[in-house]
Amino acid sequence: MNIFIATIENNLAILTSEESWHCCKVLRKKANDKIHIIDGKGNSYEGVLNIVSEKKCVAELLNGPVQQKKHPYYLHLAIAPTKQMDRIEWMIEKAVEIGIDEITFIQCKNSERVVIKHDRIIKIVESAVKQSLQAFIPKVNELVPFKEILNKKGEQNFIAHCEIGIKQPLKEIAFKNSSLLVLIGPEGDFTKEELTLAMKNGFKGLDLGQSRLRTETAGLVVCQAASILS
Amino acid sequence: MNIFIATIENNLAILTSEESWHCCKVLRKKANDKIHIIDGKGNSYEGVLNIVSEKKCVAELLNGPVQQKKHPYYLHLAIAPTKQMDRIEWMIEKAVEIGIDEITFIQCKNSERVVIKHDRIIKIVESAVKQSLQAFIPKVNELVPFKEILNKKGEQNFIAHCEIGIKQPLKEIAFKNSSLLVLIGPEGDFTKEELTLAMKNGFKGLDLGQSRLRTETAGLVVCQAASILS
Repeated sequence: MNIFIATIENNLAILTSEESWHCCKVLRKKANDKIHIIDGKGNSYEGVLNIVSEKKCVAELLNGPVQQKKHPYYLHLAIAPTKQMDRIEWMIEKAVEIGIDEITFIQCKNSERVVIKHDRIIKIVESAVKQSLQAFIPKVNELVPFKEILNKKGEQNFIAHCEIGIKQPLKEIAFKNSSLLVLIGPEGDFTKEELTLAMKNGFKGLDLGQSRLRTETAGLVVCQAASILS
Repeated sequence: MNIFIATIENNLAILTSEESWHCCKVLRKKANDKIHIIDGKGNSYEGVLNIVSEKKCVAELLNGPVQQKKHPYYLHLAIAPTKQMDRIEWMIEKAVEIGIDEITFIQCKNSERVVIKHDRIIKIVESAVKQSLQAFIPKVNELVPFKEILNKKGEQNFIAHCEIGIKQPLKEIAFKNSSLLVLIGPEGDFTKEELTLAMKNGFKGLDLGQSRLRTETAGLVVCQAASILS
């Protein structure tokens, strides 16, 4: 059965306009067809379609909500987009599959890409949520200048970089029951000025191991570490 | 400085034919240029080129070997290739960056792809090794029928699958100082017959968590779990 994202109002699921179009035009669903529904906030339902048009599909709820268990941490990844967009898109898909709560793209001094197709990222996120049978949709923020992300701190704040210095090994982070903000830099790494500014704002250096990871791989290993260590 | 893969003989590094071509034709290196060299077995060197031709480049060793520390486990991933080849190629690149020792492609009942370009995979592996500044080159085996992989057991042997049953949670595996073989199935999962056969041969079910992971994501989370938990 297909899964759709919807707003729940009383006993009805109102599919988003994108989902309505997909439901009606791509999957050619008809009234009385049964569908699975998620609200993106952890709840899933079974429903039966009673309005089907390409602009608006509405289903009556039959069963639910079934509440999905949330992972025991809040991970906010702030990452500089890679030069090749497909690398960051792949990372986003995988991060969602593995588990992530919030993604912000950051514009750094060494960033080679300063534009993000926000709508396209949202689509990739929603598709990965459905594909991996999850019920929570991670938050995706617009691209912000590096300085701005320093004001969005969690309980623990890290900046992954390649400079020599005192760093927290990834495997020793206590993810459980904590909210974390992790900054991942662009292909050319953060500048010394950016590092200094982050440190002044209470961010700790993060050591991802002896292998030099690509930007998108660095993002993924943090997601998987949180999943394994919590 | 560029890194090249070579065979070491006495005080000379003889670049592979691929690397020689790359060194001579792409990077246009000349005699007396300095290069970094790895032997793929954990040793790295500095050398100076004294023969440069598109078929054979040879460097005299100046420094080395510097031995890279090996991670404290042996991970052999046996994975069914995905229908879309770019997904498995991306996985291979990331697995190498994160850490893997041996990769075998397996042909399962539900496999939609039964051909692998072995040479192309080797190139991706070698490129990722160099890019991530590693000195060990993982072994890449040809595609084998599912049954054959059951004879290649390590000290611990797992089969990741979506069927209900008793499974080992990924986060509870003791990777340290152990050799492991982990089987990852195709998009349509392993068949019940394949699962039964694996179990009869001493493989344990493996639980990768509540999210339904794509084949290539499953491969990656196992690599990263080994890295984090050892």
